[in-house]
Amino acid sequence: MHPSIRTTDILKVTGKVSEACPDAVVVEEPLEILLGTGAGNLRKRTAIAVTMRTPGHDDELAMGFLFTEGILTQISEVVQLRILGENSLLVEISPDVHVDLDRLSRNMFANSSCGICGKASLDAVQTNALYFSVPGNPKVSPEIIYQMPKILRAAQSAFERTGGLHAAGLFSQQGELVLLREDVGRHNAVDKVLGAALKTGLSFPLKDHVLMVSGRAGFELIQKASMAGLPWLVAVGAPTSLSVELAEACGMTLVGFLRDERFNVYAHPERVQFQNEKTTNP
Amino acid sequence: MHPSIRTTDILKVTGKVSEACPDAVVVEEPLEILLGTGAGNLRKRTAIAVTMRTPGHDDELAMGFLFTEGILTQISEVVQLRILGENSLLVEISPDVHVDLDRLSRNMFANSSCGICGKASLDAVQTNALYFSVPGNPKVSPEIIYQMPKILRAAQSAFERTGGLHAAGLFSQQGELVLLREDVGRHNAVDKVLGAALKTGLSFPLKDHVLMVSGRAGFELIQKASMAGLPWLVAVGAPTSLSVELAEACGMTLVGFLRDERFNVYAHPERVQFQNEKTTNP
Repeated sequence: MHPSIRTTDILKVTGKVSEACPDAVVVEEPLEILLGTGAGNLRKRTAIAVTMRTPGHDDELAMGFLFTEGILTQISEVVQLRILGENSLLVEISPDVHVDLDRLSRNMFANSSCGICGKASLDAVQTNALYFSVPGNPKVSPEIIYQMPKILRAAQSAFERTGGLHAAGLFSQQGELVLLREDVGRHNAVDKVLGAALKTGLSFPLKDHVLMVSGRAGFELIQKASMAGLPWLVAVGAPTSLSVELAEACGMTLVGFLRDERFNVYAHPERVQFQNEKTTNP
Repeated sequence: MHPSIRTTDILKVTGKVSEACPDAVVVEEPLEILLGTGAGNLRKRTAIAVTMRTPGHDDELAMGFLFTEGILTQISEVVQLRILGENSLLVEISPDVHVDLDRLSRNMFANSSCGICGKASLDAVQTNALYFSVPGNPKVSPEIIYQMPKILRAAQSAFERTGGLHAAGLFSQQGELVLLREDVGRHNAVDKVLGAALKTGLSFPLKDHVLMVSGRAGFELIQKASMAGLPWLVAVGAPTSLSVELAEACGMTLVGFLRDERFNVYAHPERVQFQNEKTTNP
C-alpha cells in the first residue's frame, strides 16, 4: 500500500442500499518545521511552521517551503536536515546565512490548527470541545442527504459563475437550508456559517443540524464542526485519515463523496436512517 | 454584480481557436483579525490571524473563527466589532472574559502568506522575488497544454484512489513531466515540487518550465511559483482576483480551468503559441 493512503471501514450508500466495505483515505498529519540558525553558542532553533501534510518527501516540503518563503535562496545554505520525530524536521542553516526571524514572523499568518502532532491535537480538541454529540441522534435519511447538494447549489450565487468559491450550508434535520455562506477559503466558509449561527441566535450546541461543505473534509473542518457540537458533517469531496479519526473520536457522523444518489459514511453511520429499507423474509 | 465576483479580461482557448472576452473571478483579499482584551488601562489589541478570504460577512467570519478556536464561547462575550480598515477588523472582548494569549499562539499555526493587505503583499512579493520572468518566453502551444492533465493523472499514484490528494507537476517547455508531487495540501504539493527541484539540482530560476496544479490557483500558489521564477502556472481549477493581479504584475502566464481541449488565460497570454493558427487571406 502506498504510504500516503490508509484503509478505513466505511458504509457505502447507493440509492436505498448500503454496504460495509473498506475504502482508502489520504493520510493527513502535521509536520513541524524548525530552523536552526546562528553561529557557535548563539545557535538556536525556531519553530517556523506547522503544516498539515501527507507524509513523504518531507525534506523537499521543508526546503521548498523555506525557499518559497524567501528564507533560503539556494540549497547550499542548508547544512543538515534532522528528523526530530515522525512529524518534526529541523533544517540546519549555515551560520553564514542571516535569517531575519522578526521579518519572518511578520510575513507568516496564523491559521486555525491542531498543535504539533496528530495525537496531541486530537486530545486538545476533545479537551477544548464545549459540547458532545448525542449518540445516534439526530437520524437523517439518505433521501434527505441526496437533496442537500442540489439545495445548496440552487442557493449559491457566485459559485456557479466562477467555480472558485467554497460553500458551507447549515441544514436542519429535515433537510431545510438554514444558513449558507461562501468563501474562497473553505475554512472561512465554515467560520462564516458558524459566526452567522451565533449572530442570528441559533441555540448552541447545534445538535439537531447537519453541516454540509462543497469541498473536501480535512481535519480542521471536523475540528470547527465539533466546536459547535455538530453531530453531522457532509462533504462533496474526500475526507482525510485525520478527519476520520477525529470524527470517530468526537462522535460525529462523517459523510464524504456525496454525489447524486451516492455517499460514503466514514464515521458513526448509526445516524443514517434507512426509512424504506428492504428486508427479505425467507 | 455580486461583490464576491470581479470581472477580468481573459483569452478563452478552445481547440485551435482563441477569443478575448471578459470572465468572472472570485475576489480574494486578506482579512486581519485583531482581538481587544483586558480591562481599563491594561486593555490591549493583539493581531490573531490574517486569513485570505472573500470579502463579505467579515463580522461572522471573525466571530466564527474566534468561536471555533475556542476563544469565544458565546456571542455575549463580544462588546463591539470595529472596522479598522477595509481588510482589518477588531473584535472587542468583554473585560470579564479571560483570553490566554500565550495558549492561543501555541494553538495557531503559521502558513505562507502575504502580509496584511493585498496591495502591501503584492509589493512585498515583488520586492522579495529573486527572479523575473523573461517576457514572452517560453512559448507553449495549446496542444502541449491539453496533454498535461492526462500526463499528470497517468503519473499520479494515490489521487485516483481517494480523490483526496492535490498534485503539482513541473513540465518542460516541450510538455515532458519532470517532477510530480502529491499532498493533501495544495501549497504543500507545490513546495514539495520546488524542494525536489532544488534537491535534484535543476537550474534556478525555472525559466523554461511550466508548473501545473490539479486544483485552484489562489494567491499563494502564484507567490510560490514567482519565487522560483516560473513563467507559467497552469491550473485545472479557478484562479482568484488576487492571483490574477499578482500573475499580471510578475509577468507570469496564468492558465485556469484546463479541461480536455479548453482553457482560459488570465494573465500574459502572449506566451501561448498557436502553431497551426488559421489565418484568412482575403
